[in-house]
Amino acid sequence: MKYVVLVSHGVFAQGLKSAVLMMSGKRDDILSTSLEDGMGTNDFSDRFKALIQPIQSNDEILLFSDILSGSSFTTAIEILNEQGLFDRTTVFTGMNMPMVLTAVLMKDNDYLTQPEFIETVLSEGKAGISLFTVEAVNFTEEEL
Amino acid sequence: MKYVVLVSHGVFAQGLKSAVLMMSGKRDDILSTSLEDGMGTNDFSDRFKALIQPIQSNDEILLFSDILSGSSFTTAIEILNEQGLFDRTTVFTGMNMPMVLTAVLMKDNDYLTQPEFIETVLSEGKAGISLFTVEAVNFTEEEL
Repeated sequence: MKYVVLVSHGVFAQGLKSAVLMMSGKRDDILSTSLEDGMGTNDFSDRFKALIQPIQSNDEILLFSDILSGSSFTTAIEILNEQGLFDRTTVFTGMNMPMVLTAVLMKDNDYLTQPEFIETVLSEGKAGISLFTVEAVNFTEEEL
Repeated sequence: MKYVVLVSHGVFAQGLKSAVLMMSGKRDDILSTSLEDGMGTNDFSDRFKALIQPIQSNDEILLFSDILSGSSFTTAIEILNEQGLFDRTTVFTGMNMPMVLTAVLMKDNDYLTQPEFIETVLSEGKAGISLFTVEAVNFTEEEL
């Protein structure tokens, strides 16, 4: 099984999970936890270990983080490494809705190679970042 | 005053706000609300109108959305338009931590023109989206 695991500061990871589930429908292969304000690294470490309990040694992990730094990011990677799961983990940073939704919807398709899958997730995430203008508003109202 | 307003599905917007506040410190110029699962568009509309109550006609708005579609996105824009605020609004889609944090930290600096500010927010958001590899882990452990 391929798990999508979201980690962040605040409650961003849980929030993004809730938004993705509204699009994808309910499923149990998306996990999330976060380092909340005032929480120590040890508390986050306990949270993360509990979160990944269902993951078996033959599963794969797509780990998404809010940013490329911070205790939640480094602690998650350390724990995955300790548990022998890091070799089966692909790590993405800067998570947003388009990239996580793309990963969720495409991870179990066999027609993409792993490099093609990674490239698709990254490109969908970046393409989703845009400036929206009045012309686009008119286009949206007419076309969608 | 320049407000950063986050809208989304689920509770993504509130979650991202909580993460940004952990980096920026407490501030009252970041607003967030969302269309939660099972909520109607009218309920979201009421939420959004209440959210933007503090915003005055001479304020500016940086609106961030999870995706370039959906009821939360279109309803927010419709309400801003009805209230005569859309001309003072810049709309970004695909929100992630690097782009919102960049906007929060740079919006009140005078040394960037508006086009430069927009380009910086977009480019920081896209640059934050990356694949993290083992080489990068080693680099992080040594350098950070």
